[in-house]
Amino acid sequence: MQKLNHSVLFIKSSDPAVLQATCTVMQHLNHIEHPFALTTETAALLNDTTSTVTEMDALPSECDHIIVIGGDGSLLSAAKPAARQDIPVIGINLGTLGFLTDVCPTDLRALTDILSGHYLIEPRGLLEVSLSNQHSDLALNDIVLSRHAARLLAYDVFINEEFICAQRADGLIISTPTGSTAYALSAGGPIIHPQMQAISLVPLCPHRLNSRPIIVPATSVIDIYLTLEHSNSDTLLSCDGFDLKCSDLKQASIFQSKQTLKLLHPLNYNYFEALKSKLHWERSATLSDQ
Amino acid sequence: MQKLNHSVLFIKSSDPAVLQATCTVMQHLNHIEHPFALTTETAALLNDTTSTVTEMDALPSECDHIIVIGGDGSLLSAAKPAARQDIPVIGINLGTLGFLTDVCPTDLRALTDILSGHYLIEPRGLLEVSLSNQHSDLALNDIVLSRHAARLLAYDVFINEEFICAQRADGLIISTPTGSTAYALSAGGPIIHPQMQAISLVPLCPHRLNSRPIIVPATSVIDIYLTLEHSNSDTLLSCDGFDLKCSDLKQASIFQSKQTLKLLHPLNYNYFEALKSKLHWERSATLSDQ
Amino acid sequence: MQKLNHSVLFIKSSDPAVLQATCTVMQHLNHIEHPFALTTETAALLNDTTSTVTEMDALPSECDHIIVIGGDGSLLSAAKPAARQDIPVIGINLGTLGFLTDVCPTDLRALTDILSGHYLIEPRGLLEVSLSNQHSDLALNDIVLSRHAARLLAYDVFINEEFICAQRADGLIISTPTGSTAYALSAGGPIIHPQMQAISLVPLCPHRLNSRPIIVPATSVIDIYLTLEHSNSDTLLSCDGFDLKCSDLKQASIFQSKQTLKLLHPLNYNYFEALKSKLHWERSATLSDQ
Amino acid sequence: MQKLNHSVLFIKSSDPAVLQATCTVMQHLNHIEHPFALTTETAALLNDTTSTVTEMDALPSECDHIIVIGGDGSLLSAAKPAARQDIPVIGINLGTLGFLTDVCPTDLRALTDILSGHYLIEPRGLLEVSLSNQHSDLALNDIVLSRHAARLLAYDVFINEEFICAQRADGLIISTPTGSTAYALSAGGPIIHPQMQAISLVPLCPHRLNSRPIIVPATSVIDIYLTLEHSNSDTLLSCDGFDLKCSDLKQASIFQSKQTLKLLHPLNYNYFEALKSKLHWERSATLSDQ
Repeated sequence: MQKLNHSVLFIKSSDPAVLQATCTVMQHLNHIEHPFALTTETAALLNDTTSTVTEMDALPSECDHIIVIGGDGSLLSAAKPAARQDIPVIGINLGTLGFLTDVCPTDLRALTDILSGHYLIEPRGLLEVSLSNQHSDLALNDIVLSRHAARLLAYDVFINEEFICAQRADGLIISTPTGSTAYALSAGGPIIHPQMQAISLVPLCPHRLNSRPIIVPATSVIDIYLTLEHSNSDTLLSCDGFDLKCSDLKQASIFQSKQTLKLLHPLNYNYFEALKSKLHWERSATLSDQ
Repeated sequence: MQKLNHSVLFIKSSDPAVLQATCTVMQHLNHIEHPFALTTETAALLNDTTSTVTEMDALPSECDHIIVIGGDGSLLSAAKPAARQDIPVIGINLGTLGFLTDVCPTDLRALTDILSGHYLIEPRGLLEVSLSNQHSDLALNDIVLSRHAARLLAYDVFINEEFICAQRADGLIISTPTGSTAYALSAGGPIIHPQMQAISLVPLCPHRLNSRPIIVPATSVIDIYLTLEHSNSDTLLSCDGFDLKCSDLKQASIFQSKQTLKLLHPLNYNYFEALKSKLHWERSATLSDQ
Repeated sequence: MQKLNHSVLFIKSSDPAVLQATCTVMQHLNHIEHPFALTTETAALLNDTTSTVTEMDALPSECDHIIVIGGDGSLLSAAKPAARQDIPVIGINLGTLGFLTDVCPTDLRALTDILSGHYLIEPRGLLEVSLSNQHSDLALNDIVLSRHAARLLAYDVFINEEFICAQRADGLIISTPTGSTAYALSAGGPIIHPQMQAISLVPLCPHRLNSRPIIVPATSVIDIYLTLEHSNSDTLLSCDGFDLKCSDLKQASIFQSKQTLKLLHPLNYNYFEALKSKLHWERSATLSDQ
Repeated sequence: MQKLNHSVLFIKSSDPAVLQATCTVMQHLNHIEHPFALTTETAALLNDTTSTVTEMDALPSECDHIIVIGGDGSLLSAAKPAARQDIPVIGINLGTLGFLTDVCPTDLRALTDILSGHYLIEPRGLLEVSLSNQHSDLALNDIVLSRHAARLLAYDVFINEEFICAQRADGLIISTPTGSTAYALSAGGPIIHPQMQAISLVPLCPHRLNSRPIIVPATSVIDIYLTLEHSNSDTLLSCDGFDLKCSDLKQASIFQSKQTLKLLHPLNYNYFEALKSKLHWERSATLSDQ
């Protein structure tokens, strides 16, 4: 493993807990004499005008990794520019283990270890959506087609150019394994281990009672054709929860991106620890004794 | 049972099958010398300028029942004015048995029988929603609170003024037994027999994995308080699928209306026949032999 | 409300916590000079040979209520004899609020209040199953038909003598509202408020993907006819989790019993408190921040 | 692709449709002068004493493939000996497309094409279960741990020697992608494309409401430890629906077998065709028009 040289700090909230954790991380980096810059957004949220500041969309070459401080939602925001520039990401949580943010700010020895080259590197697949009007975007968790009003969507689903089904539903979640523990889980999809090379299709309240989530190889191309007389204002497309501006949506192609997000974990990283913690499997949400 | 004297015909689609069925019904009513009027909407869709025409919202006193021709969706549209004016409704389907439209246009003897007083009368409960800004509305199937963009709703649910739970979800369906086989079923709710005096609460993709549909007595008052910094454009309230205009929604009270919809059925009416037919239970949507 | 005169104590476990709570309750009853007897089972578990002892199946007339100490499972065991002899039941839990056991042993003032006549009396419906071979039994939670080996059951379901569906499944749960938070909930059924007069049918892993739980009025009679060449050893019928001895099962009729279980609650009893506590709704079993 | 030389015919039912299809296949093989043998079981079911007969567990070297006639259930029965001897399998259905049996007996040109070397060869993974008492077995669909009476199982699940969760449930399905459309689907698991290298864990009626199906890489080793005081008669282990004889079950290891089943398909084989047909996606099991 290679030593890391120059951090970029990224936050997206001015929540006091985030600002406090960020100061702690900055002090720690100063203490271990590890150079770092802030992104413009981070500097603004910290009211910091003295640090070296850098643009998230064009990180300078000396920056060889990003440190995200916050929850998994913050890491989602950093994922796209990080993947596009192929810069690995370290996630520091706020005291609660995240699926993606697994370094705890109260024990930054794990951060020191990672920076000195003792880390696991884990590539996570991203989905890319390409619209008929040439627009495209990336998502680490999911791409969601959904209705925008009290009307069902109607669409045809194709996998590798083959017709699979016509659905009437509130929408369709197309998810990575990373996203399988996010929105797709609420909608009835399974938990998919992040090492799987898979794409998950989970319909939202499908009209047809025999619809089920489908897991296909990550090499699959999913095409969705809207079939009803929906006006553009009725259909919503979002990537990782951010609405895509798309007028007059008729078709969307979704497939695994060539880019990946490289997550840097402490050497004792364990996916199932986060899973057990986030889903409260340690505690019995049971009906015990009944 | 009482003989019926004067029909009002209601349709809401210019679909050729609907228009054809309407002509058949009109010829039949003429043949059996049963007086009828058209609603303004029906007359417009039929391009009929000669018939007696009547307003749905203010039916004249001689009209003692409404005949809806179309699917269950058409009957939903007639339900509110019918309930408000306490006028019973007969539903004529288009060849496919509906949950609410159970007279077949290819055998109108059933209609003749009903008009001559041989019918079952079945009252169906409606839900009423009352908003903080004094607006109120009725629904035969369901009242749905849902998100309008790629963001979760957050709300507190109270039943009879007692706090039940704080939910983060895509929304919440509050349904009658009649609506239990509509949207609520797609969202994972149970089928509830229409004779039950019940209100069903079915969350849409709840964040919390231990959320479940709840069935409470029809005498319950459900209060929903939106808790997050949602702008009014993020939250949508709909009654039977029709969006309610409501700016700055903060709270909604939902309870059973004092008004009921009176459905008139043929004497051989059977709820389970419609259920079996609509859900295709006669045919094995199974994985047989695997 | 009427003052209660003579208790019968019932426990079904020699768990130290149960024995300790029982001693506490006995001391409390002595302290307030309230007469009580032990059931034979309770006396045996306590190694008590000095107390007045009474048979659960033939309680003497001076015993006007039963105090169950333990969890909801213990109360289930007392429910049948209590219902048959129409004797009300008080449930004392072991420190964790139960759905049915709502008096806490660390504050027995609630018990004193109940005994002095300050209580809510809540009748809970029971299901009765009657088999072709004349055997019958009662259940407070549920009657479950299930497979006994790695083979599907096949059966026809009738409601009020009308054919509803032919199912192939692991089995079928027929549940009261009381049982809706027990096994039926694990199998995908809804939560049903105990004031509802309802019977819930929840299939276990049905082969047919469009099968759904159905809620019908409590006046309904459910008939199940086994249709395949199942030997008697393949089919299991249980009432509240206790296997019924039934050889060569071909048909079972299930309906609401004329007997009810009368639960005595403290005046501040609240069904939703137990629900929130048992399902951990106070705590976020969520995927927050992802 | 290689020409096939010598068939073994396998059936497991004396259903007239199976026998009729078998005669048709035999006539076709004679007609195209393709040598074949019957398995002992097939010969017995056909009352055929004249054909060359061969043992399923020790096929002679000239037999280079097996032709199964029947449904997917029949193919499951042939899968284990075929996989152990590494002999590919062709599945002929009885007029209804199966997931595994995709040659139609009414058009045996597809069979002729396959025999002449025009086929797709598709390896399907099998699961192997190894018990503490040294017994082991194979399954093409699933290995199921389930209860044998009206009591919950309690067990700990480990993946790759790491503790995942303690479950109380009716049981646990561990399924291949092939089995994802069988029992696992009835229990709420997703459809998994057969090209995926995956193992699916689907709990049966888990007590804990936040349990969910999990999909892990096919390289995972699943260990299950029974934790409660279950007698051996309470726990059942089955492979592809056949009960394993196992006394005093305490622990089971489940992992992908080194052996695979090689399915031979016509060149126009398409997984999704079978899926659409079996799940009736072509037809609307919907609540349309409501």
